[in-house]
Formats: sequence, C-alpha cells, structure tokens
Amino acid sequence: MTLDQIYQAAFALKGVARETELIRAPRIDAESEVWLKTENLQVTGSFKVRGAYNKISRLTPEEKKRGVIACSAGNHAQGVALAAAKNGIRALICIPQGAPISKVEATRRYGAEVRLVPGVYDDACREALRLQKESGAVLIHPFDDEDVIAGQGTIGLEILSQLPETDVVFVPVGGGGLVSGVAFAVKSLCPHCKVYGVQAAGAPSMAQSLRDGKVETLESVHTFADGIAVKRPGDLTYELCRKYVDGVVTVTDDETATAILALIEQHKMIAEGAGAVSVAAAMFHKADIKGKKVVCLVSGGNIDVAILSRVISRGLLKESRRGRLTIELSDHPGELQAISAIIAGLGGNVVSVRHDRSGEESDITACTLSVGVETRNRAHLNEIRGAILKAGYRILN
Amino acid sequence: MTLDQIYQAAFALKGVARETELIRAPRIDAESEVWLKTENLQVTGSFKVRGAYNKISRLTPEEKKRGVIACSAGNHAQGVALAAAKNGIRALICIPQGAPISKVEATRRYGAEVRLVPGVYDDACREALRLQKESGAVLIHPFDDEDVIAGQGTIGLEILSQLPETDVVFVPVGGGGLVSGVAFAVKSLCPHCKVYGVQAAGAPSMAQSLRDGKVETLESVHTFADGIAVKRPGDLTYELCRKYVDGVVTVTDDETATAILALIEQHKMIAEGAGAVSVAAAMFHKADIKGKKVVCLVSGGNIDVAILSRVISRGLLKESRRGRLTIELSDHPGELQAISAIIAGLGGNVVSVRHDRSGEESDITACTLSVGVETRNRAHLNEIRGAILKAGYRILN
Repeated sequence: MTLDQIYQAAFALKGVARETELIRAPRIDAESEVWLKTENLQVTGSFKVRGAYNKISRLTPEEKKRGVIACSAGNHAQGVALAAAKNGIRALICIPQGAPISKVEATRRYGAEVRLVPGVYDDACREALRLQKESGAVLIHPFDDEDVIAGQGTIGLEILSQLPETDVVFVPVGGGGLVSGVAFAVKSLCPHCKVYGVQAAGAPSMAQSLRDGKVETLESVHTFADGIAVKRPGDLTYELCRKYVDGVVTVTDDETATAILALIEQHKMIAEGAGAVSVAAAMFHKADIKGKKVVCLVSGGNIDVAILSRVISRGLLKESRRGRLTIELSDHPGELQAISAIIAGLGGNVVSVRHDRSGEESDITACTLSVGVETRNRAHLNEIRGAILKAGYRILN
Repeated sequence: MTLDQIYQAAFALKGVARETELIRAPRIDAESEVWLKTENLQVTGSFKVRGAYNKISRLTPEEKKRGVIACSAGNHAQGVALAAAKNGIRALICIPQGAPISKVEATRRYGAEVRLVPGVYDDACREALRLQKESGAVLIHPFDDEDVIAGQGTIGLEILSQLPETDVVFVPVGGGGLVSGVAFAVKSLCPHCKVYGVQAAGAPSMAQSLRDGKVETLESVHTFADGIAVKRPGDLTYELCRKYVDGVVTVTDDETATAILALIEQHKMIAEGAGAVSVAAAMFHKADIKGKKVVCLVSGGNIDVAILSRVISRGLLKESRRGRLTIELSDHPGELQAISAIIAGLGGNVVSVRHDRSGEESDITACTLSVGVETRNRAHLNEIRGAILKAGYRILN
C-alpha cells in the first residue's frame, strides 16, 4: 500500500463522490471538540461508493467488458451499482431475499441487475461466486482489496485537509476496509494522530483477531448495526489494522442507539447503526479524548425505517423518556381513571394501556394495569411512580 | 411592506442565519422537478431565527436595554433566545409547562431565561403579557409584525437567487409570518411564480379565513404538526396572504407523516411536521406542478423524538410496511407456532403478539391471536394474509 494509490483514488473520485462536510458537533461530548465526517450524506448514502468506484475505474477494458458482480445486502450493493453505471458497465448484485425492500430498490434504481437469493448473506455470496465462475465477470470484494481500500482511504485525506489539527479519528469497522484505508492515509501523513476502529460489542471480529494475533472467525454476530455485522475480517485489512490502527474499541447496541438519537435531535441527521458507532465511541469515552479534536466518521445513513423506529424507542427507554408501569388494581370501577388522572396531572403522556385479570404475579381478586408512558426524563418517571405509590397502589415493576 | 425591508433584513442576517442549501429531491415527485429549501438545517433548527433576529436588531438602544419577552412552546422560543444573545440583550421566554423538555433545554442553552407556565399555550401567552407590562420589556410577536415578516422573507430572496427559474413555491402556514414574507419577496421579484401556502387539514385557519374573506378563529386545532397548529392568523399576515399568496392548500397528518418518512429515507434528513407539509403538498399534488420546478420550503426540524417515533410507525402502517392481523384460533396447542411458521416462511417479521381468550368478537371456545408484522409492502402483507387463510384460519381483521 502506498499514499500514491490513495491520491490516485482521490483524483479518480472527483465528480463522482462528494467531499462530504466536516460538521462541528458541540453537544456530543462536553470535554472534547467533536466533529462529524458526514459520509451518511455521501451519494448512495454511504462511503462504499468510493472503494467500489476506484476499483471498477481501474479494471482493464477487457475486464470492464465482462462486467462486475458483487454480493451485498446493503451499502456495497448500491456503491457497486452506481460505480458500474458511472463506468458504463454491467453489474449483477446478489442480495439475500430477506433484505429490506428499500435497499433492493435503491440498487435497481442505479441500474444494476439484482438477483434475489433465497437464504441469508452466505447463501447469496455462494451464488455470486457460482455466477462469477459461469460468466467470467469480475467479483468486487466489499473490503479485502487494495483498490477498494485506497478508495475508502480518500476519506482520511479529506479529514486532514478539513481539520489538519485532528488528534483522534474514530472509524467504524466491519470487514476493515474503511478503517484500513483511513488509518493508512492518516498515519502516513500525521503519525501522532490516533486512529481507533469501533466495532459493535456483538460483532468484535477485528478486535478479537488483533488481540489474539491472528485472523479469527466469529461463530455468530449479534447487533442491529448490520453494516458492520461481519464474522471474519479480511486478511489484507487485518495486516493493515495491525500496523496502522491504534486500537479497536467496542460499543453496545444501546450506546449506538443513543448516538443515533443524538444525531437526530442535535443535527437533524440520520445515521445507520454502523455509521453511528463512531459517535457512540466519543459519547461514551471509549478512548482518551479529553481536550482533543475528535473526528467521528459517520459512515452511512441507510437504515431501514422499521429498524429506525425500534432504535428510537429503545433510545427513549434507555434515557427514561419512555417507561412502563405495571400496577396492581383491586378490580373496582374507576381505578383506571384514577391512575390516568395521576399521570396526566404530572404531565406524563399515556401511550398504551393493558388491563389484565389473569396476571400470575398478582392476587386472585386483583388485576394488573400495564401503562406505557412518555416522560421527560428519569426524574419525571420517578415522580409519577412516587405519586402512584402515594395514592396507595402497588407497582409490580 | 417594501422589498427594501427584506433586503435590509438579509443584510442584517449575514453571519447570523445560514444561507441554507437548496437540494434537488428527484424522488419526491416523478412528474416535476422538486427542490428542498432546507431551513430544518438552519441554526436553532428552524427559520424562526431570521424574523426574531431582524426584529431585535432593529430595536432602539433604549428598547434593547429593557430586554425582550416572548411566548412559545417551540421554534420561536429558540429563535428569540439566540437572536437576543447575538444582540447581547436579556430574553425571557414563557413556555407552557407541558412542552417537550428538549425544547426548553435548547432555549436555556441559548442563554434565555425560561419561565415554565402551568397550563397550555394560551396561559403562557397571558403570563408573557402580564410580565411584559410589569417589566416594560419588548414583546416579540411570533408572526404578526413587519420586521419579523421581513426576516422570514429573506428565504424568498435566497430561493430566487439559488433557482431563478422557480415556478412554484410551497410554504408551510401557521400564523402566516413565513408565507407572507416569502410570498411578498417572490411575487415582487417574479410575479409569474406561484406561491402556495400549506396548512394541516386539522388547523386550516388561514385557508378558512381567506375563503370567508375575513380573519377567523378556529375553535380547536388537531394536528401533530405543532409548529403550525395556530387557531387564528395574524391581521397583517392575513392581508399580505390575501394580496400575494396564490392559494392555501391543506394536507392530512397521514400525508405529512409520509413526507417525513420520505425525507428520512431519501435524504437522511429530519423534518418536523410543520416543516414537511410543503413536501407533502408536492408529493400529493395539491396544486398543478406537472413539468414545473417546485421548491418545498422545509421550515424546521425540531421534532420531539417520541413524536417522530410515532410518525414513523404511522407512515409504515400507511404504506403497509407494518400491519396487524387478528386471527381466530381454536385454542389448541401448537397453533401459535403454526401461524409464526407461515409468517416467517414468507419473510415477514413478527414484532408483537397478543393472545387473548375473551374476545367478544369470537366463538366462546375460540381465542384470538393478534400479530403485529413488518412486511415489505402491501402485496407482501396480502401474501401472508392469503397463506394464513389458505391454512384454514379465520382472519377477523
């Protein structure tokens, strides 16, 4: 890998990828100066177009004639589709059948042919390999490829030109293509700047591989940040991370949900789970950032809205801005009204009610009332809880 | 009102308000060329800072010494707070106690003193008037004021300089300050360009007033777009709308929710209800826009995330990407498993289950199963429905 490759990629990407804004985010962390590199606002909604375009633009005329093939359930699909269209060549993308329809349609809209493959991601990849052998098309790997890595590395150049005094960069890590390119570029130009990878705690393949000193395959991954839910890092990316990355930290899904909420509320901006882990790392101080200039690379914004809706609910619960109270009633008329009056009187907002007779946890003569309530914060929820207790009711949880 | 006032406001606002981007939105409507004027990305998260700052910067030194006072549960509060801070004067904002804590905190963060008033908006306004008389501070009206209107009108100048060939502008209407300023600026410079106001169907105060030829007060308003839930337009804004606005159309809350979803999915961008009604007007062809260049003024992005979460759910239901099936079971073991298997086999995602014995609508020996399911679209939901019927179950709704 040489810096030259990354500068060449930057030149190739002119007019294709946007030089995304670096935005000051004063409220993400009080003790440091946080900036967001907004690749969620990149064309196709993620950084992936950089690597895919750089790779495809460097194919020989003969290879271009054969077209490209890729396997992805997400951002790589859209990146390859747009990159192929811009190069005027054919693209076939294998997508697992269960993928969100929104991603399938976006890929088709960029002009790629989509093959929906029954099963999960691994099945789609097997089909892609089979089709690749059959047709002779060029397979575009999502991360373990020097040209792809060089494309992603252009983000490192942009960060240093936008904020030359950067002290710390947090970069999301799935297979490791993005962090390899960014770390290589940043550390080559600015060795004292720290570059940390960030993984989901439920998919720590690179963190674990680096710790154990060899590439490892996780048996399973569990995170809603599907863009970085990768079981095995690349061989090339592992070597680059070993040399250039200062460390890989992990964040929980709850921390990521909180970061997504913060980006919505403070910046009116959508990030996907994989895109927000870098912001979560800064919010929850996963490295020493006190007093430093910190860039969080928000790698993408392609979150399915059904998942977004659940992420928001989860974030609200986490911040006690939504709560659930299960209350024992004695099954007399008027009690539901009494409880409602207490909650409303304190400014709580009832969003759901379940009234049950057969609760196993309660007296045989009693019934339970389960109330979902929107509150301002934890103190407000506790205030409501206290008032219900004071009125003589028993709260089961 | 003169264009002069608006040009002066534009000059005053330099370095205070951002000249927000005009962004091409190719997928909002297939038959026209839609652009978004992104005031949701304005400082304070809405256009309100323009009018408030222009008004406050024009106060006499003596008035400035007395400070300003305002009443608002939302964007006006933050606009006045920031505008006062920039002018180095004191601001007191009366906010109804039930307002989202996020808005109260944002107002405080800009340095204003906040008075939380028990009751609703009208109570807070009464208190603001009382305090104004007591202290002699200058009351900053949210819309019925020439300097405020001139400030909002600067958006009209920006739109014409960013897209001189604009044919149609859709502008959200609450009290009418924004649309008055924008329509005055646009029609003065470019009389053939159409300017339409957009109101929520549940709060059509300006539409009704214009129709009836006099300012009218609605008895109640009902919409989640709280920023435009205004019972009575201003006298000044009514006159300006009568002269300069080509018409006021209305959109339903469901249409607005769909527009918010589209902005999230297609532009990774958050709009509040009041900010998205203009986009809904274009999506649902509330005026003749075929083949035209259309600017939707997205006026703000300050939506409470609890409401956002409900809006997304509503939008998903509306597009049949989330559905609920109530199925009659015969209360034998294994039936829940059988239904789950049918749904999973077709790629549906079960998000909630309620299993009830005592349904009034069903046989005494039977019970009902209510399943919330995420689907790809209406066809997918119908496919699941068909398979359940085919397996011999009765679907109650």
